[in-house]
Amino acid sequence: MTKRLAAACLFLCASHPVIAAAEEKDDIAFIIEEGTQQSEAMVTASELLDGIGPRLTNSANMDRAQDWAIAKFAKMGLTNIHREEFEFGYGWDLVDWSATMVSPRPLRMTALPRAWSPPTNGVITGEVVVAPMSKVEHFAEWRGKLSGKMVLISMPGETSESDGPVFKRYTGEDISKKDAFKEETYDPHAWEDRLDSAEFKQKLGEFLKAEGAQAMVAMSYRDGMLVHGEGYDFRGGEILAVPAMELAQEDYRRLVRLAQTGKAPTISLSIDASFDTEDTKAANVIADIKGRDPKAGYVMAGAHFDSWFAGDGAADNGAGTIVVMEAARILTQLPKPKRTIRFALWSGEEQGLLGSRAYIERHLATRPVDTSLAPMAQFRSWGSAWPVTKKPGYDDMKAYFNMDNGGGRFRGIHAESDYGVTPLLTKWLAPFASMDADRVVAGKTGGTDHVYLQRIGLPAYQFIQDPLDYFSRVHHSNLDTLDHLRAEDLRQASVVMAGMLWQAANSDEELPRAGIPTEPKVTDPFKVADPNK
Amino acid sequence: MTKRLAAACLFLCASHPVIAAAEEKDDIAFIIEEGTQQSEAMVTASELLDGIGPRLTNSANMDRAQDWAIAKFAKMGLTNIHREEFEFGYGWDLVDWSATMVSPRPLRMTALPRAWSPPTNGVITGEVVVAPMSKVEHFAEWRGKLSGKMVLISMPGETSESDGPVFKRYTGEDISKKDAFKEETYDPHAWEDRLDSAEFKQKLGEFLKAEGAQAMVAMSYRDGMLVHGEGYDFRGGEILAVPAMELAQEDYRRLVRLAQTGKAPTISLSIDASFDTEDTKAANVIADIKGRDPKAGYVMAGAHFDSWFAGDGAADNGAGTIVVMEAARILTQLPKPKRTIRFALWSGEEQGLLGSRAYIERHLATRPVDTSLAPMAQFRSWGSAWPVTKKPGYDDMKAYFNMDNGGGRFRGIHAESDYGVTPLLTKWLAPFASMDADRVVAGKTGGTDHVYLQRIGLPAYQFIQDPLDYFSRVHHSNLDTLDHLRAEDLRQASVVMAGMLWQAANSDEELPRAGIPTEPKVTDPFKVADPNK
Repeated sequence: MTKRLAAACLFLCASHPVIAAAEEKDDIAFIIEEGTQQSEAMVTASELLDGIGPRLTNSANMDRAQDWAIAKFAKMGLTNIHREEFEFGYGWDLVDWSATMVSPRPLRMTALPRAWSPPTNGVITGEVVVAPMSKVEHFAEWRGKLSGKMVLISMPGETSESDGPVFKRYTGEDISKKDAFKEETYDPHAWEDRLDSAEFKQKLGEFLKAEGAQAMVAMSYRDGMLVHGEGYDFRGGEILAVPAMELAQEDYRRLVRLAQTGKAPTISLSIDASFDTEDTKAANVIADIKGRDPKAGYVMAGAHFDSWFAGDGAADNGAGTIVVMEAARILTQLPKPKRTIRFALWSGEEQGLLGSRAYIERHLATRPVDTSLAPMAQFRSWGSAWPVTKKPGYDDMKAYFNMDNGGGRFRGIHAESDYGVTPLLTKWLAPFASMDADRVVAGKTGGTDHVYLQRIGLPAYQFIQDPLDYFSRVHHSNLDTLDHLRAEDLRQASVVMAGMLWQAANSDEELPRAGIPTEPKVTDPFKVADPNK
Repeated sequence: MTKRLAAACLFLCASHPVIAAAEEKDDIAFIIEEGTQQSEAMVTASELLDGIGPRLTNSANMDRAQDWAIAKFAKMGLTNIHREEFEFGYGWDLVDWSATMVSPRPLRMTALPRAWSPPTNGVITGEVVVAPMSKVEHFAEWRGKLSGKMVLISMPGETSESDGPVFKRYTGEDISKKDAFKEETYDPHAWEDRLDSAEFKQKLGEFLKAEGAQAMVAMSYRDGMLVHGEGYDFRGGEILAVPAMELAQEDYRRLVRLAQTGKAPTISLSIDASFDTEDTKAANVIADIKGRDPKAGYVMAGAHFDSWFAGDGAADNGAGTIVVMEAARILTQLPKPKRTIRFALWSGEEQGLLGSRAYIERHLATRPVDTSLAPMAQFRSWGSAWPVTKKPGYDDMKAYFNMDNGGGRFRGIHAESDYGVTPLLTKWLAPFASMDADRVVAGKTGGTDHVYLQRIGLPAYQFIQDPLDYFSRVHHSNLDTLDHLRAEDLRQASVVMAGMLWQAANSDEELPRAGIPTEPKVTDPFKVADPNK
């Protein structure tokens, strides 16, 4: 029997489940009633998503939204409400844009500038050239041919023939598939590829600028007039080399067909965007419900408050924000918990989990930065850098619960291959079985703010959520609006989030901790990269 | 045994299938090769759909497109190429438009003016008011409250939770479900409802104008940022009473939520559209491949050339147009057929099958117009008016094949509950079994230009087509672009269309004819309408 399982058994056998259950029953019942019958989730959602809108890291709208959140926490009576700043880069604010075909016929196109694109300073007009380039070796073919052009940088395929459902809820079987133990492994080649791709995108921009191209024109990765403004995958906060516009697939392909069957079409583009070069700092928002026992540490709920900018940042991650804030509201209606309950609205998640990383560096543990690596490699390899050095605050964090998989209701939680915590998480979710939220699966889930906490051995978890239409069409697209959330899902998630926090804050037992991992340092990806790439 | 079945048996037993098959084999083989290996379908498609674009009935772009089609037919060597005009109404040309939220925050919205909306003469700005009105009795509640407002005329529901596939091809079972005999019946209440709805929409526009509203704002009937510019369902060619803008569901719902939870948002709209009040005539384009035997009559293929304006009119009905024109091109490569093969590119289909109706009135048969009915009822009841009076040309039309169900390949043909024709249609489709196009089903299919020909007892048929994503998202939306067609489907359909025309044009046997039907006259819907409606 491992140490963890022994620990798990210890409290299961030794604690007094009957009494414990009795103590918590009324509180849980209150939480369920408050969260379902007196919910304020949808009002909060409309204030933030309809009234304020998208919250790109370090944008002016993100500042407005944080002021709103801070005022909201204050009104609830939370304490220790403050911003915690970290270095990010330039803020980028999109004001307006346009994309039209001028010849062979006038046509409005569906488009969105790429984030951190420079402005065009008015309408620019030029002929398109279809110049697919996916590696540096392709530049030679186009050298001297791009001056003054609108450069379409890829060849489009055909529209999707998707026969999958747009909207989906998990079956029990879907969830069971997630209940599989898997050791975390590091693939240095994954780093390479991502870094090569990021590096290439920068080089492509620089090449287009050097060649005197007017703009880079890219195709949306989803069809159906969905646009995203994505495509850069290097660190945000840096201005792109040339104006970059993403076109809807339908509009992009039309240009390519026309260019290949006759005279190249002429298009007009405009991007009005401003940069904040003064304030290069982003910030997390932190707020507490102070606990009775200063020595008992704290439990924490978090969601990234920053969003992408194509929609209103509703499913990603307005939903998590609203659930965290509604859980806070519900819990303020209860007597003081034993442990402090901390709420974090992260920033910079979309640019690489920067907010939760900054919280770790400030409060929990440090990792060395290998200055022998290129800046981008330094940035990307941090999460695997060795050794990890505890800070005094490390032992105070007793549990962290994250929400960032769209607006879908909770179906359970990912134990992150950590069998030691399964019994206690199972016990805490049991009261929500009738809300269909009681599954604990061994599997990991990545890509959001619990990851770096997990990596340093803290009990940090992300809930299992019904997918709805999050990945099929909403994620980072112009469809990320409140319409695509579901009131009953947000209320259910708020109840479960509040219930888990409350039990974690008051439990005699603590979640067992993996402790500092002995993970290998990732070798410099550039040293092992294929030289012919 | 019915007369029709006797007739069917007659030629099946009496004709010489072996010889007939032998005669046609080489021609069919040539048609398949020419249509698959030397196809020009996609080039034609790009010229029309990418280069020219949408073709709203009697718009300037429709005129351009018809000039292109006439030149194309001439280049193929067809004869008797001409326009046949019919009275329609004003042409409407959309030049540009915009829709933005001004307060509580600046936001571009996805929108499309309703067809035949008057222009706004610049940008108009006003507060929204949510005033759901679905019957005349609702007007009283809003009288005196709409002056200067942007009037949202409905309450939105929730976004769809569609778990159906976006893209679909028929299984054999799907097609078998269509093989069911059903007598045509007339439901006068259907007329009523449609007429009431059309009448109401006109009255609503007049009410908004009388109340001094700035504009009517409607919600798209599909979510996912799809817009259509639809919503009028009365006869086209008439200018709406007030500027009318359709908003994407996501943008419409945001306005409603904001209006209902706080201060009503302010929006700005602009519609730049022009009317052609001089030329009120629309026209069909007709072209022939002249047959050897002037007494043998003609067979015909048709597709409506007019389109809706939200996209490029690709699936509806660029696809049918391209297939009819490619079939013509293929058949010009063969020696003269026995019967003339006529090609019709209809206009006014979107406004009520007006082009094919005009062809009937000019060449085939007349129906009385009941002038005691309201104009709209006269217009809508024509297809069921009694008696039908043959014209000399009635007997000359031996077969009509229509294509207008999107870009999907042919899977067979609808016999329209006419068992008499099934054996011959089955025989003619047999060579295309390996192209999966050989199913003959008894079922009817409506809503396009074969319907009025069927109603007067002529052998007029529409093919069974794979749905693809036509009805799920493309039909009349801003997604109706060439992207959503499939090259191999258009080539297959062109081959089958050409093959059916060729066999019908050269067959010793003729399709049996239902003859003039003894159908009841539809009673004046207004006399039986519920007075409380």
